[in-house]
Amino acid sequence: MPQSEASQKARVLIEALPYFRQFRTQTMVIKIGGSIMDDEAMLRLLVKDVLLMHWTGIKPVLVHGGGKHITQLMARLDMKAEFVEGLRVTDKETMDVTQMVLSGLINKDIVSMIQREGGRAVGVSGRDGNLIRAKKMVKPGVDIGQVGEITAIDTGLLETLDGSGFIPVVSPIGGDGDGVSLNINADTAATEIAVALKAEKLIFITDGNGVLSDLRDPDSVISRIRPEDAPALEAKGLVSKGMIPKIRSSIEALSRGIRSVHIIGGKIPNALLLELFTEAGIGTQFIP
Amino acid sequence: MPQSEASQKARVLIEALPYFRQFRTQTMVIKIGGSIMDDEAMLRLLVKDVLLMHWTGIKPVLVHGGGKHITQLMARLDMKAEFVEGLRVTDKETMDVTQMVLSGLINKDIVSMIQREGGRAVGVSGRDGNLIRAKKMVKPGVDIGQVGEITAIDTGLLETLDGSGFIPVVSPIGGDGDGVSLNINADTAATEIAVALKAEKLIFITDGNGVLSDLRDPDSVISRIRPEDAPALEAKGLVSKGMIPKIRSSIEALSRGIRSVHIIGGKIPNALLLELFTEAGIGTQFIP
Amino acid sequence: MPQSEASQKARVLIEALPYFRQFRTQTMVIKIGGSIMDDEAMLRLLVKDVLLMHWTGIKPVLVHGGGKHITQLMARLDMKAEFVEGLRVTDKETMDVTQMVLSGLINKDIVSMIQREGGRAVGVSGRDGNLIRAKKMVKPGVDIGQVGEITAIDTGLLETLDGSGFIPVVSPIGGDGDGVSLNINADTAATEIAVALKAEKLIFITDGNGVLSDLRDPDSVISRIRPEDAPALEAKGLVSKGMIPKIRSSIEALSRGIRSVHIIGGKIPNALLLELFTEAGIGTQFIP
Amino acid sequence: MPQSEASQKARVLIEALPYFRQFRTQTMVIKIGGSIMDDEAMLRLLVKDVLLMHWTGIKPVLVHGGGKHITQLMARLDMKAEFVEGLRVTDKETMDVTQMVLSGLINKDIVSMIQREGGRAVGVSGRDGNLIRAKKMVKPGVDIGQVGEITAIDTGLLETLDGSGFIPVVSPIGGDGDGVSLNINADTAATEIAVALKAEKLIFITDGNGVLSDLRDPDSVISRIRPEDAPALEAKGLVSKGMIPKIRSSIEALSRGIRSVHIIGGKIPNALLLELFTEAGIGTQFIP
Amino acid sequence: MPQSEASQKARVLIEALPYFRQFRTQTMVIKIGGSIMDDEAMLRLLVKDVLLMHWTGIKPVLVHGGGKHITQLMARLDMKAEFVEGLRVTDKETMDVTQMVLSGLINKDIVSMIQREGGRAVGVSGRDGNLIRAKKMVKPGVDIGQVGEITAIDTGLLETLDGSGFIPVVSPIGGDGDGVSLNINADTAATEIAVALKAEKLIFITDGNGVLSDLRDPDSVISRIRPEDAPALEAKGLVSKGMIPKIRSSIEALSRGIRSVHIIGGKIPNALLLELFTEAGIGTQFIP
Amino acid sequence: MPQSEASQKARVLIEALPYFRQFRTQTMVIKIGGSIMDDEAMLRLLVKDVLLMHWTGIKPVLVHGGGKHITQLMARLDMKAEFVEGLRVTDKETMDVTQMVLSGLINKDIVSMIQREGGRAVGVSGRDGNLIRAKKMVKPGVDIGQVGEITAIDTGLLETLDGSGFIPVVSPIGGDGDGVSLNINADTAATEIAVALKAEKLIFITDGNGVLSDLRDPDSVISRIRPEDAPALEAKGLVSKGMIPKIRSSIEALSRGIRSVHIIGGKIPNALLLELFTEAGIGTQFIP
Repeated sequence: MPQSEASQKARVLIEALPYFRQFRTQTMVIKIGGSIMDDEAMLRLLVKDVLLMHWTGIKPVLVHGGGKHITQLMARLDMKAEFVEGLRVTDKETMDVTQMVLSGLINKDIVSMIQREGGRAVGVSGRDGNLIRAKKMVKPGVDIGQVGEITAIDTGLLETLDGSGFIPVVSPIGGDGDGVSLNINADTAATEIAVALKAEKLIFITDGNGVLSDLRDPDSVISRIRPEDAPALEAKGLVSKGMIPKIRSSIEALSRGIRSVHIIGGKIPNALLLELFTEAGIGTQFIP
Repeated sequence: MPQSEASQKARVLIEALPYFRQFRTQTMVIKIGGSIMDDEAMLRLLVKDVLLMHWTGIKPVLVHGGGKHITQLMARLDMKAEFVEGLRVTDKETMDVTQMVLSGLINKDIVSMIQREGGRAVGVSGRDGNLIRAKKMVKPGVDIGQVGEITAIDTGLLETLDGSGFIPVVSPIGGDGDGVSLNINADTAATEIAVALKAEKLIFITDGNGVLSDLRDPDSVISRIRPEDAPALEAKGLVSKGMIPKIRSSIEALSRGIRSVHIIGGKIPNALLLELFTEAGIGTQFIP
Repeated sequence: MPQSEASQKARVLIEALPYFRQFRTQTMVIKIGGSIMDDEAMLRLLVKDVLLMHWTGIKPVLVHGGGKHITQLMARLDMKAEFVEGLRVTDKETMDVTQMVLSGLINKDIVSMIQREGGRAVGVSGRDGNLIRAKKMVKPGVDIGQVGEITAIDTGLLETLDGSGFIPVVSPIGGDGDGVSLNINADTAATEIAVALKAEKLIFITDGNGVLSDLRDPDSVISRIRPEDAPALEAKGLVSKGMIPKIRSSIEALSRGIRSVHIIGGKIPNALLLELFTEAGIGTQFIP
Repeated sequence: MPQSEASQKARVLIEALPYFRQFRTQTMVIKIGGSIMDDEAMLRLLVKDVLLMHWTGIKPVLVHGGGKHITQLMARLDMKAEFVEGLRVTDKETMDVTQMVLSGLINKDIVSMIQREGGRAVGVSGRDGNLIRAKKMVKPGVDIGQVGEITAIDTGLLETLDGSGFIPVVSPIGGDGDGVSLNINADTAATEIAVALKAEKLIFITDGNGVLSDLRDPDSVISRIRPEDAPALEAKGLVSKGMIPKIRSSIEALSRGIRSVHIIGGKIPNALLLELFTEAGIGTQFIP
Repeated sequence: MPQSEASQKARVLIEALPYFRQFRTQTMVIKIGGSIMDDEAMLRLLVKDVLLMHWTGIKPVLVHGGGKHITQLMARLDMKAEFVEGLRVTDKETMDVTQMVLSGLINKDIVSMIQREGGRAVGVSGRDGNLIRAKKMVKPGVDIGQVGEITAIDTGLLETLDGSGFIPVVSPIGGDGDGVSLNINADTAATEIAVALKAEKLIFITDGNGVLSDLRDPDSVISRIRPEDAPALEAKGLVSKGMIPKIRSSIEALSRGIRSVHIIGGKIPNALLLELFTEAGIGTQFIP
Repeated sequence: MPQSEASQKARVLIEALPYFRQFRTQTMVIKIGGSIMDDEAMLRLLVKDVLLMHWTGIKPVLVHGGGKHITQLMARLDMKAEFVEGLRVTDKETMDVTQMVLSGLINKDIVSMIQREGGRAVGVSGRDGNLIRAKKMVKPGVDIGQVGEITAIDTGLLETLDGSGFIPVVSPIGGDGDGVSLNINADTAATEIAVALKAEKLIFITDGNGVLSDLRDPDSVISRIRPEDAPALEAKGLVSKGMIPKIRSSIEALSRGIRSVHIIGGKIPNALLLELFTEAGIGTQFIP
């Protein structure tokens, strides 16, 4: 390695120093979503970012989704996926498929990847240790089945795992206390867990790169959004329709004690590190 | 409640006193197998037994199988189950089904049942926390796929969970350290975990009632077997063919430090309590 | 043991499960009084009940009396027992006899019985570790000698013993801080210790079976009494005269934070277990 | 206070400095015997010495006798004291008297004195916490009743009390594990407890001033005796007959790990401090 | 040693008993000033006093000055010492000399003396562990250079050292957070450290013997001064001019939570012990 | 920041991941020497490297020299520096200067720099906490004064500081136990401290860049030297004369348990990070 290249490396590490110092011992909840879960190479990069966080003293908690894989298995089983207002209608059989895919496959694949890269991880669902307590969501005029809204988070299990050096990986299944599993929106699960853990950061890894100021330009990411900026953004039609609920829930998370919420693009290599350890970041950060 | 009945109840509790005292703080590994997993009422009874153990200070660890459910899902997916020497030939797709059924469904159903009865449980697979490290089993002349034999048990996760009052429930999936999942025989997993934990007891819950002295009489259970009794039993043809490997592995477990191994019938209500808390027991106990 | 009998045993244990769970880690103060202390067989049964409590995680503290034995030794020493309003007039010599009998004999016999049955116990008097601080009781017009009323309880010693797995057995002798011993009513000592320890239950073991609704019928035990019931009971003359102070002090104990007070009959085998681990109980329970 | 007197005081404290440093955290077992127990003023002085030890970080454990008081109570009860080879023949009734006097009175009086002077003490007998396990002593041709020889010391209770800042005071009663109390020689009890606790010092407080070189001169105390000196002392008839067993057992204690054994006179004010905190000491010290 | 002398020694120790008990676990900050630092024999005596405190459970913290030595080294370096209102004008070079003398020499000599007498000590300056944070003192019309006033005390380092059995010795140098050292008045440093540590006592060791009632009589020490006495003392001209600020700051320290402030004479052998462990004391004690 | 630059930064961090993981919790002793101590900018860079180590979980211990500054102060004081075999002849006055410069100035400047960059540091000399025990070095025929060779290292203080998150900075002054300070070679002090702490790495920061294969080419640094390579290097005259003792002592350190010894150039920015966190390193590493 030429001297100059080496020096540059050292400089990068030194630039990260204030971040290492600041983030040390902070809890950060990371929602992994989108196509990153289909791309082993991208997932591996993400996991490396998570491990760098872990080894510099940050306490990461991962929450994952997996809707696409659920739909795929349902198709193979000749089951029809049905949605009401974006919520998957979840009969008993669909619930089984959901649990099998999320807790049996995706969850363990993330765990396995972390361990291949040298970490120690434990995959749990929200039913384990009563982590996510939920109740059946009621929609007027339609029964959407075993879809749940969260009523309580018991952080005991996450704290136990973290205290022993394990990185927790959570699949968003809740329990109603009577043995019924409930399908929970992964973004919501991540948010509620972050609030319950009094996490410093809540980070959504998505297929997009963040909130855009120009919907046609994927590079027009808005770096920082404060709660007071949101109405204007929505009013100007500057944000995509799908992004509106994400913006609203991010702002709500801030009001519930999370210090900052991030939306970053999973397709960008090392997105997590870039967002955390560089001044500019690469996605959208919501701050109070 | 008439006085006499009440007194009798008290007497039963008092008779259990020496067992409470003796078992307190002991680790016991319980392999749950057979049709008990299809019968919610029976499973509930078993779980109550486990909780009684837990609340009197015993540290139970559960390991479960689930071959029948795997075969069922494979059938629904038009996959053909194939066996070599009793081992399921496990290609990548079969492995996925195995993991989904074991870690995604059965494991969480047991966890859920424990929590409905008031306990706190956490379901993990052998991949979590590097619990079960395995390597691909090699059979001469035939590739049986992702079937593993255990190379190491890391008890860290189990001790972490137990130390925080969670009952661990383990699905028998191993990892090879390179991200490949391996299908592990549940009996073997339970035995290796018991040995690694230096458990006092290893208990197999099966469809039969124990080792029989007369194959035609299901009540002819042999209460106690010592290592030196085994050859005669085998020689006399007194034990069923399927039972021979179980007897051998039980005796081997004794030689590796387990104080006693039990084979009991899951169909008998409260089989676990009867075996542990009564003098005669109801199944077969192997002691050194 | 026939199958049916065994099953019944298991069923009893399982029925006790919610109690095991509920009582776990609770402190219960048990006043042992009456003729049970003259009957080794009955005492042994009681001690077994206490040990079952101990081994299922309850923290029992025993307080005992012993008036009859004091009177007996005084008679042998040609001393005359004299009482004023039910209080033993206690000169220096009577105090010595009281201490010798309570702390030297009865206390150690209970300790010894617990240890014979497999527990670990430590007998202390209220003078040890400044457990019971008291002052001389003043009666107008008469000097009743070294009879004390409690001014403070120091729970440090009891917590130390309990924290190391010892069952404390307390003889009701107080100290005035200047080296003078004081004779304390055992019921009062038990109550004050229970309040100071924030005990969940305070249990009086007596010769009677509880509060009766018909004084002529020893089986007419009133199962539950709430504070508001007491005046009517007293007014109707339904309770024996001797029981009135016990009822009043039980109700007062409730108002000072004890969750329930029990009066049960020491002559009933396993009275303690029956009261604690069966729905109906066998004595009288005071609840707020 | 004149300046010179004050300075002298300071000098004394400073001279004690190396002892404070050396003895800090050491365990010392002190056998209190002889007439000191009849003399409240002397006992108070002794207790102050013990508290000074305690507050400078030494861990004292007291063991007391009380033969004279036992004989007195027996006389009052018209019981006849009988001795065989210096051992009190102990029938059931004598055992009761022994326990009442030792554990009920003398033990608590010492506890009380410690607490009056500002310490915290707990009086226990050897039956508490299975502290002294013993078996019936067998003498050929004569039944001496409940006289015991020690078979085991369980130091758990003493360590629990010491760990919480209580000074333990032990009465020398043993238990045989079946509920039978046994009368134990107090010197032996102190020695065995010292050995079990790996105490640095074992100190006997007696009516004499130590081992004398001239039996007629009470001031002719031999300051230091090494094991090799003992035969000559005995041979020359220089030591009193009663002292010979004490010398022998002191030397045996050294061989079992006690660093030094002291015999000092209880009638000398502050004997304990003088022996511990002055170069010359005032009694006899046995060192290896 | 004659018996009578020995007894007297023991009596002195016993008289110290209530002090040992009272002071145990208390923190005491001791400012060492004046000519004691030039007199190795006197310093050794003082250190022995400190060690006696330490070994009886007191937690001493030493703060030292050293102005005379600074002036001496400056003279050797042909530097001129200049003072404004009693404050040394401290240019960069003077600051270097100050640090070298205080932290490099005097501090380590005190540490070394403690260790020679058997203790364990660690010498630190106020810059270590951010112990003393200060800002440049501003005097109108004149630049006195690197003279600081304390803005914050971080007790973390002192607690760490004390928790591991080290006696901290502090040289009064502060830091401004930007790498600039500041010269701090040692009396002020001791006071602020005492307040931050919530010390029970703050003790100034000076060349005088305390506050005098007659300036011409060095033995006319006023034993106790309460805040309300101060104005009269000052008004009557009874105290030396140099003593006035010391009286005022002592009284202020009381108002900030220190239980008592002492001014004692370093030339009196064992002054510290005499002040602490005798009723009359030998210096002046300020109490609220 | 352009995307590509950001990505490169992330890549550097990720490349450091295995090092973060590997070095976590390791102790590394760093000897700071040479002209770096005269160059605040370089020292700041070095301190940043040390803090990065600290915040990624490494436990650094710094040891510094300072000969040049000693000589400078001696010159100002008209003292003559004299050397025998490279050892400074150290009379009492020279020792004072040595201590003042090392412990009073240089040590505190390093501490201060660490704290300005956000860390917490504590500067100690080898006399504090008996860290470096030494004896006077004896040279035949010449008295070199207070020059010491190390006889023992007490790591207690370093462990105390590290356990509370302070970075220790050590000046190489030893004590002989009788209050005499001894001048210790800083390289030797670093080596002995590393051995006593069972450090993984011992790192010398020097003015040169490492061991050169061509004395005329400062870039001809030999990356790795194994013990068996050393004789050839010396024989070929490939290494400078001054480097020979450094090579020998490095190899000796390996034989005493240090896993690797590094000699790196202090003038290279971020030399420490480059050596630790890049494959090639930039100095010379000695490995067994």
